[in-house]
This record gives sequence, C-alpha cells and structure tokens, in this order.
Amino acid sequence: MSKNRLEAFSDGVIAIIITVMVLELKPPPSADPGALRPLIPTSLSYVLSFVNLGIYWNNHHHLFQAIERVNGGVLWANLHLLFWLSLFPFGTAWMGENDFAVWPVALYGVDLALAAIAYFILVRALMSLHGSDSTLADALGNDFKGKISVVLYLVAIPLAFVNSWIACAIYVLVAALWLIPDPRIERKLAK
Amino acid sequence: MSKNRLEAFSDGVIAIIITVMVLELKPPPSADPGALRPLIPTSLSYVLSFVNLGIYWNNHHHLFQAIERVNGGVLWANLHLLFWLSLFPFGTAWMGENDFAVWPVALYGVDLALAAIAYFILVRALMSLHGSDSTLADALGNDFKGKISVVLYLVAIPLAFVNSWIACAIYVLVAALWLIPDPRIERKLAK
Amino acid sequence: MSKNRLEAFSDGVIAIIITVMVLELKPPPSADPGALRPLIPTSLSYVLSFVNLGIYWNNHHHLFQAIERVNGGVLWANLHLLFWLSLFPFGTAWMGENDFAVWPVALYGVDLALAAIAYFILVRALMSLHGSDSTLADALGNDFKGKISVVLYLVAIPLAFVNSWIACAIYVLVAALWLIPDPRIERKLAK
Amino acid sequence: MSKNRLEAFSDGVIAIIITVMVLELKPPPSADPGALRPLIPTSLSYVLSFVNLGIYWNNHHHLFQAIERVNGGVLWANLHLLFWLSLFPFGTAWMGENDFAVWPVALYGVDLALAAIAYFILVRALMSLHGSDSTLADALGNDFKGKISVVLYLVAIPLAFVNSWIACAIYVLVAALWLIPDPRIERKLAK
Repeated sequence: MSKNRLEAFSDGVIAIIITVMVLELKPPPSADPGALRPLIPTSLSYVLSFVNLGIYWNNHHHLFQAIERVNGGVLWANLHLLFWLSLFPFGTAWMGENDFAVWPVALYGVDLALAAIAYFILVRALMSLHGSDSTLADALGNDFKGKISVVLYLVAIPLAFVNSWIACAIYVLVAALWLIPDPRIERKLAK
Repeated sequence: MSKNRLEAFSDGVIAIIITVMVLELKPPPSADPGALRPLIPTSLSYVLSFVNLGIYWNNHHHLFQAIERVNGGVLWANLHLLFWLSLFPFGTAWMGENDFAVWPVALYGVDLALAAIAYFILVRALMSLHGSDSTLADALGNDFKGKISVVLYLVAIPLAFVNSWIACAIYVLVAALWLIPDPRIERKLAK
Repeated sequence: MSKNRLEAFSDGVIAIIITVMVLELKPPPSADPGALRPLIPTSLSYVLSFVNLGIYWNNHHHLFQAIERVNGGVLWANLHLLFWLSLFPFGTAWMGENDFAVWPVALYGVDLALAAIAYFILVRALMSLHGSDSTLADALGNDFKGKISVVLYLVAIPLAFVNSWIACAIYVLVAALWLIPDPRIERKLAK
Repeated sequence: MSKNRLEAFSDGVIAIIITVMVLELKPPPSADPGALRPLIPTSLSYVLSFVNLGIYWNNHHHLFQAIERVNGGVLWANLHLLFWLSLFPFGTAWMGENDFAVWPVALYGVDLALAAIAYFILVRALMSLHGSDSTLADALGNDFKGKISVVLYLVAIPLAFVNSWIACAIYVLVAALWLIPDPRIERKLAK
C-alpha cells in the first residue's frame, strides 16, 4: 500500500487546521488601533498553535520520508493523530478568548499531550511494520524528544492550576526543543 | 484517463469536510469547565462523523489502489459520493446541538444511507469499467460489508422514531464493523 | 514549466469552494422537521452550485490531460477562472437566502457568465501555447458547448428581470448540457 | 529531502487562505441591489488580496521549479512565509470593513512587508543550500523586484497616515509590477 495518499491527506488536513485557526481572529468593528488590544491573547495563542502544527507537519514529513509502506493500522494511527490536531482550533480559541485562564490552558495541554501520544503510537505502528533494523529505527534512535515532550506536557497540566503561565512556559519550552536545531543536541537526541 | 487528480480532489474535499465540522464546536464564552458541558453532545456527534469520514477515506484509498483508470461516469459517481459526504457537517451539527433528538438523528441516518448508496454506485461504476475478473472484483468479493451497512442504516432510520439512541447505537455498530479488523471476519466478509 | 502544481492548486481551491458553500446551510435551532423548510431554497441553490463546480472541475481535469505544459499567461488565466469560481459561495448564499429573488438570481448569472468567459480565455491561452494542430485543438473542436453556455447565460441574465425562474431554468439547462453524455451529441459537439 | 510535500502543503495553505477570505463577503439580508453597496470596499480589499496571494503562489511555483532539494531551514523559512500570508484574511477584512481607514491600511501594509521579507528569507535559505552558481541564482539575478517591493511597502506604511489611498496606490503598484510581464523589464529585472 503506497504512502502518497496518506501524505497528501495529512497535508490537506494540517493545512486546513492551521488556516482555520486564523478565522478566530475576528477583525474588530472599529478602525482604531486600540481595538486590536483585546486580540493580543488570541494572537499569542494562534502563534503558539501555528508553531506546534508546523512542528507536527515537519516531523510527519521527516517520518514518512524514512518509511516505505503503510498498512491499515498506520492509516488509523494517522487519523487518530489528525483527530487530536483537529481540536487545536477549539483549544486555541478557548485559551485565547479567556486570556490564558486556568481551565482553558489545562485543556490545551491535554490536547497537546494526546496529540503527542498519538504521534508516539503512529511511530510505533510504523516501527512494527518496518522492523527494528530499518532506516526508520535508525533515524529515530531512542526518540528522546518524543518521550520528553509527553512527560513535560503531563507535568504542565497540573501546574496550570498553580499558575497558568507556568504551563504556558512549558508549552513554549517543548516547542523550542523541536525548533532549535542545535547540532550537538541533535546528534545526542538522535532525532 | 488517469486516477491521480480524482484521488487528490477527493482527498481535498474529505480533508476539508472533516476539519470544517470542528468549527461547529464553538468555544464557550466562560473559562469555567462547566461551560464545556453543553458541548458534550456536539463533541460526541463530531467523533462519530470523524470516524465515519475516516472510514470513507480509508475505503476510498483501498478502492482506488485496486483500479487502474477512470472515466466520465466514475468522476460523477465520485462527485455524487462527495455531495452526500459534504452534508455531514450540517447533519452532525443539527444532531449535536439538539441532544440527539429524533428528527436530527433520523436525518443523519438518511445522509449516512445516501452516502453508503453513493459509495455502492461508485464501486459498480468502477466494476463495469474494469470487468468481473479484475483485481478490483477479486478484492471486493460479494461486498457483504457495503450491502449490510446500507441495510442497517435503512433499519435504523425508522427505529429513530421509537428511540433515537437505538438508531445511534446502530450507527456506531456499522462504524465498528468497518473499524475492527478481525482477520476471520475480514476473510469471510471478503472486503 | 510543469502542469502538476497548477492542477494541485486548482483542485485545492475548487475542493474548498465546494465545501465552504455548505457552511451557509446553518442547522436550525429547533429539532422539528418543519424547521428545515426555510432551508429548502438554500439547499437547491447549493445543489446547483455543487453541480456547476463539479462540471468545472471535470472540464478542468479533461482540459489539462490534453495539454503538456503551461506558461505565465496560463497561470494567470487559471487564477482568473478561480477568482470567479471563488465568488460562487457568495452568489449561492445570496440567491438561496432570498428565495431566488430577481437581483440575486441575475447576479448569480453574471458570476456564471464571467466564470464561463474565464474558462474560454484559459482554453485560448492553452491553445496559443500548444498550436492549432495539437491534441488539445483536436479534443476541443469548435468548442460549441463552451460558446453556447456563455450565450445562454447572457440571455438568462436579462430574463431574470421578467421572471427569475426562467433564468434559473436556463442555468439548469446549461448544467444539463454538460452533464448528459449523449454520445451522438458528444460526437457532434466535439467536446 | 524531497520538495514535493513542501510544495503540496504550501499549495494547500495558499488555496485555503485565498478561499477563506471570501467568507468575509457576507451576503446581505436584503435582495435589493443597493444592499450590495456596503460590500464594495470589502470586495476591493478581497480583489487586492486575491491578486497578491496569486502572485505569491506564482512566484513560489517558479522558485521551487528552479531548485532541487530542501532542508530543515527551508521548511521553517517556508512556514514563516505561510504565517504572514495566513494573516491576509484578517488584514483584508479589517481594511475592507472600515472603508480603507488609516490604521487598517497601515497594518495591511505591515503584513505585506513582513510577507515580502519572509519570501526574501526563503529565497536566501534556498540560495545558501544550492550555491551561487546554481540555476536558482541564475534565475533570480539581483532579485530587483523582490527588494524594491519591500522598500515600496516600507514607504507606503508611514504614507498611510498622510492619506490611506496613497498607501493603497502603492500596494496596487507593487502588485502591477509583478503582474505585467513586459519582456524588456523582465530581462532587465532578471526575475
């Protein structure tokens, strides 16, 4: 079974999710610059989600370049990932419109964690199809980044109830971990 | 006539339908977790439709891997299927926002049934183009799953007027039939 | 310059237009079947636009299978076509929500005519690139269907002010002309 | 790393942005032609953004035909461009709904300038990957058009506070610069 349509479909869904989020940025009725101020939290929320979805697309791209074929299990593991990603616009809007209040920030973290777990399951499904001595297994190594991301999200969720900005800082930290391509870390983390 | 653009266009339409549905999940104005409670039926409705659209995309993917070419009739049979799928966001929202009331649940079933019939017509159009001794005919067998799905939907619609949850249970049952890849059933149902 | 990305981009835009239109079908607040009645004109309007966009996608598909390359002029002729198609959701909604009143029906016809003219220009741009003895020129013949469609739309627009249903009947007639694949007509019209 | 998925993803995102903008053109409640008059500024704003996004898609298409491979830096430079393009629907709506008032026009110019800078960065990222004697470097020449666009946008933004129509005229001028394919200018500007 070829991987091309799975890639095309995932590209389509992620492209739509990333674009649909911006519809939550409703233009204010007034042309005054001050009218943009209430949009600042929504904008920050949008930037965070844009970056996270960019990271998922990037990793998805890398992942499927290292593999050769897919099966029914992989198709569903991929749809499972897309399901949690599809809830990003909801989580992003709820968090942004409520100025990063406790519950929305915690729920956003739950969605981040579930997406990260879904990605982990997708990687496992591809590994069991391609074997432990495949290019894929070699490229992933011990998948330290993937595992630490889930752990950090699970730590951030309860911390949101202490102070929601601590949780947000952890979300930004995880994104930075994936974004910054420090060669030494890259070699160590075996991404 | 090549099948690539038909696949790409169908991927695009299904990707958009699956993502547009989530726009019905409007973030509540309050940051209180209780504010999420009224969204539970809409969320359940969304999950059911996401799974159903996932099944259609999956089956569409399998179907077009078994064929080699398309013609004008196939293009329109495919657009006919996409038409009924495009009404899923409407049916999903009406059902979710009215707590799975009788008429919305029945209408959702009508859309499910019409999509299943449209898929059946698409399969026939491809069969008559490729012949009864093609890979496609071999892969489909007697298409038991496709036929029983239509029958179950047609049974569920009147039952919605007895109790809408019976109809919903049947919708879930049909989805489960396609999701669970029991090898013995798979061999028997010759999907 | 390869034609693949132009095809992919056009597929994407048409797929989104066709799906975005359904967002105008807003689920009624009541679960009563009578609450669906006000949606009937919007639904009819949606079906007409779905079929028209399906025809455009179909013809676009056929057109680009008969050609080999594109240039800057073709890219812009194609974007020009997509521009008029992108106004279909607006025209469809205005016509449906106003029960096929005179002005919305006339404006819808203007958009149909401008899209048909844009398609005609796209065909010319491709012809001048490929030459009059190409597969494309052979496949199009005298392009009777393309020309008669523009003429019929231009006749329908003023007739909308006599009775908007006459104009609608002409819109349906043009769609039927493209949909019904009568082999004798097909050979004659040399589509 | 192959460039195909980057092209497909960018096509998807640009196709959605270009189509989502039209959702801001809300059909008026009345069927009277006069009811369309308040939509004129929004429509003009839409046309300007449609043309600008068409130019970006066109240039993106040309750019990636001249290159052979991508790397992580290019993926992020491309996502950075898509981010600023994704804000076009917001800027377009705010400008159109406020009759091209000063602040919205200036903000639209800021988005245009940031997108142009992001495109410039993307070109640099591709250049440093392919070397100064590649087809790409040859095709771009001194990239006069790219540089003058950024300069013109940066001039237009403060001029919006003198008269917002001066800024708009400059936005139209830059678009015209990319649209009009005067061969002599083309050879000179070495696009």
